Amino acid sequence: MGNLADQVLKGETRAAARLMRLLDDEIPQAFDELKLLYPQTGRARIIGITGSPGSGKSTLTNRLIAGFRARGQSVGVVAIDPTSPFSGGAILGDRIRMQDHEADPGVFVRSLATRGNLGGLSRSTRNVVHVMDAMGKDIVIIETVGVGQDEVDIVGTAHTSLVVLVPGMGDDIQAIKAGILEIADVFVLNKADRDGVDRSEREIRMMIELGGVDPDGWKPPVARTVALRNEGIDELLEFIDGHQAWMADRGELAKRQKRAVEATYWESVKAELLGLAERRTRELGLIEQMFPESGEPLDPYTAAEQVVASLMGELENGAT
Amino acid sequence: MGNLADQVLKGETRAAARLMRLLDDEIPQAFDELKLLYPQTGRARIIGITGSPGSGKSTLTNRLIAGFRARGQSVGVVAIDPTSPFSGGAILGDRIRMQDHEADPGVFVRSLATRGNLGGLSRSTRNVVHVMDAMGKDIVIIETVGVGQDEVDIVGTAHTSLVVLVPGMGDDIQAIKAGILEIADVFVLNKADRDGVDRSEREIRMMIELGGVDPDGWKPPVARTVALRNEGIDELLEFIDGHQAWMADRGELAKRQKRAVEATYWESVKAELLGLAERRTRELGLIEQMFPESGEPLDPYTAAEQVVASLMGELENGAT
Repeated sequence: MGNLADQVLKGETRAAARLMRLLDDEIPQAFDELKLLYPQTGRARIIGITGSPGSGKSTLTNRLIAGFRARGQSVGVVAIDPTSPFSGGAILGDRIRMQDHEADPGVFVRSLATRGNLGGLSRSTRNVVHVMDAMGKDIVIIETVGVGQDEVDIVGTAHTSLVVLVPGMGDDIQAIKAGILEIADVFVLNKADRDGVDRSEREIRMMIELGGVDPDGWKPPVARTVALRNEGIDELLEFIDGHQAWMADRGELAKRQKRAVEATYWESVKAELLGLAERRTRELGLIEQMFPESGEPLDPYTAAEQVVASLMGELENGAT
Repeated sequence: MGNLADQVLKGETRAAARLMRLLDDEIPQAFDELKLLYPQTGRARIIGITGSPGSGKSTLTNRLIAGFRARGQSVGVVAIDPTSPFSGGAILGDRIRMQDHEADPGVFVRSLATRGNLGGLSRSTRNVVHVMDAMGKDIVIIETVGVGQDEVDIVGTAHTSLVVLVPGMGDDIQAIKAGILEIADVFVLNKADRDGVDRSEREIRMMIELGGVDPDGWKPPVARTVALRNEGIDELLEFIDGHQAWMADRGELAKRQKRAVEATYWESVKAELLGLAERRTRELGLIEQMFPESGEPLDPYTAAEQVVASLMGELENGAT
């Protein structure tokens, strides 16, 4: 024990990949390694990228990796893939494109599949980010497909969040409204060679104004890119740098780091408590009591109270 | 106590709305009322509707309500709104459109805002569905904006799930791949008067085939609608009926009902355990220990173990 942590701290990719697998499998010892790594985390700059499917996020991520590499920064990427028997084609293709950088030891890509389980995805994502941070990656990019609440939560704990849109979106504007606007530190108007780019930029700026601009707050800039042709990436990198500098100035970075640690804490608490509850539910046969062969079924609310009371022990029982 | 439950069982809308508010505020007594209502639930037919923003879901929902009402069925609607300072306009407009039916005592609409808290939304949704079911609504429609994991989870526990798409979607096809295909019992190609409707239908059917069709399974039909002009709604209703009949035949309906009860159980367990953990975290001052003024900070993994051990009591402590 601790051996794996040592290797990760030396930046060994194979050790890091192995630790990530053990964490995925919820091996308790792996969390001991994470504890050892914890004092060495907090140095990486975490960048979240989200947006509607088809907005070209993966190509953009690829270009950003190249941009960071050109500056001599090492990069970790957590690519969140939706679970689907159909995701094979397009999304695997995206990943393969990202593997432009596979031969580069300064780039470490890890894909995670979304899962149906309770908050499992944000926990896995955070674990991977921590390992990459401890490895010494200067930049960790979290790229996620979709604009649902989970995706917003995950990307919302990054230091700088990019929301990628395409011109002539129309419907996309509604998607932005659906919760991702609040998390955008930088807007990226990708495929900016398409018609309607001016109008889309106006719409985005209007939405920012409508949201009420705090004069002391950060006003999200809008970057125009054509990721496929590597256009606008330098300006985007400048916007990202600008946001990082602004955060460091205001103590905002420390605030975001604190928020991420608290989220890690709550996800760990949740996972442990639910693990215990699952075992106790089986021991008490509560599912069977909710669906009896005959007689009155136990209602799920009472069943939940029973498992909690049982977990809390007799002493706590009275107080609960 | 029990008074409110009685009024709900008589179908009184004001009592139901009051109970929903108390549940939202997590008033413990409200859950006692839910327990009393539980034996009277399980009769409503639950229909989930999801799809990309801008696909016309709300107009479609409105037409479906009219269709069910014309058959003499009573309808409850849970409309899930994303939280956003920007959602005011378009989405409120949708809701207002739905209020065509406001004067109709056979229709009960309840909006829920998405929240950042842990699984709070699916729990609230399920509570509202249970109350509407106990009220005696024949049909309960859950309409949700967005295609993220949370939305999939919520709509996935309906008896019949509709996924709404528009022709010429292109990008949308990727959204479908992102997890919502699996939950679709019926596809709705809305705005079917647009160009590209044939191609879109072919693409959908191809995806269904690619997914591997179980010869004994349900093969999702594709309904073409123009909700704005009330076209195709009757055929859509037939597809919904067909799915319900197929499920009843196969015992699939009982399976889905069981799954929803189990989800209610787990959400209640999670909410109660996390509530206790929040209190204990404050009592132990764990957040402060993770961010000390000076000295070594406590790591979040160890902190999580400490709160769980404390909650489980001394006796459990050794075993954990």
